[in-house]
Amino acid sequence: MPDRRTQILRAAARLIARRGVRGLRIGELAEEAGVSTALIYYHFTDRAELLRRTLEFINERADRYTAVRDPAVQPLDPRTDLEHALLLELQDTPEVRENSTAWGELRASAVFRPDLREDLARASLAWVNETAELIARARPQNTASANAAAAERLTSLLEGLSVRWLSGSLPLDHARRLLKEAIAVELADATRGSGTASGGTL
Amino acid sequence: MPDRRTQILRAAARLIARRGVRGLRIGELAEEAGVSTALIYYHFTDRAELLRRTLEFINERADRYTAVRDPAVQPLDPRTDLEHALLLELQDTPEVRENSTAWGELRASAVFRPDLREDLARASLAWVNETAELIARARPQNTASANAAAAERLTSLLEGLSVRWLSGSLPLDHARRLLKEAIAVELADATRGSGTASGGTL
Repeated sequence: MPDRRTQILRAAARLIARRGVRGLRIGELAEEAGVSTALIYYHFTDRAELLRRTLEFINERADRYTAVRDPAVQPLDPRTDLEHALLLELQDTPEVRENSTAWGELRASAVFRPDLREDLARASLAWVNETAELIARARPQNTASANAAAAERLTSLLEGLSVRWLSGSLPLDHARRLLKEAIAVELADATRGSGTASGGTL
Repeated sequence: MPDRRTQILRAAARLIARRGVRGLRIGELAEEAGVSTALIYYHFTDRAELLRRTLEFINERADRYTAVRDPAVQPLDPRTDLEHALLLELQDTPEVRENSTAWGELRASAVFRPDLREDLARASLAWVNETAELIARARPQNTASANAAAAERLTSLLEGLSVRWLSGSLPLDHARRLLKEAIAVELADATRGSGTASGGTL
């Protein structure tokens, strides 16, 4: 049984994924979470704080389902780890669909709500850094800044593909294929840049 | 002086960019456009049709400011044309900022509004096809499907970068640099695939 605070955050993520940030009413959230509105205001000082903590909750959940499997169990090559971490964000499971919908909606809302921007920028940076580390393991010969730029491109592309999928412009399997090819294109570019044969280090 | 219908669409794009689709009220739109609410309902049967026609208006406006310059005036190489067409979507001018904000917001809203999806998918496809044609001129040796996939990746990346920029997670000049590098990475990949030297055909 999760604690009350987690129950509220879980319900908030669910409601945001169902009707959007602007459809989130505190009364309905209380009902969805099975708590009183007073308890919501006890845990979160205002709507902005509730949204920021929900963003954090969504990120932690994404960290869990995209975690690279325990390498002691089945060590994989760095490129496969990178593919796993990114492709796991494009899955048609209730959890991933809900999480991706809520993340995209918080991202879109931040265009109009400056009070979300700092937390969103921090969460984006953390994601870029984790991805850059995975890329660096796949192409250690490249500079840290080249790997960081590739991570920014791949995570931005993933956000773009995800909202196309969720808004009905792109079938999921096609989005996954485009992302997989983008990883190949980014890694191939580095391999060529270092003068080794295409794909040779992978 | 634009006709009344165009006046309404221009005002709708402005209001969506200012407060989002869900903040768009017909009364305020009438005031912003300087027309009566009756005239809005005369031109657009309902809210869904108004949003679809605003999407179309935004696309036509983007087509104008990203149009490749008249080749008779100053013929450029295909890669430069491709860079122009895509990078012109990332500019800090009032028109581009408003257009990009409204497009991103309509995209995000379609996750929750199925009645926008068909028009959005059609507009996305038209944009992908135009971009694929520009890519094909830069790398005629590649298959049409490889060029279409590259166009889907570059336009999805552009949408992802644009919303990061507008939501305060990415400075504009950095977003532009990432996009320019992505074009180079995509075109380099094709060049390598055909066995010619890097960048040699450009």
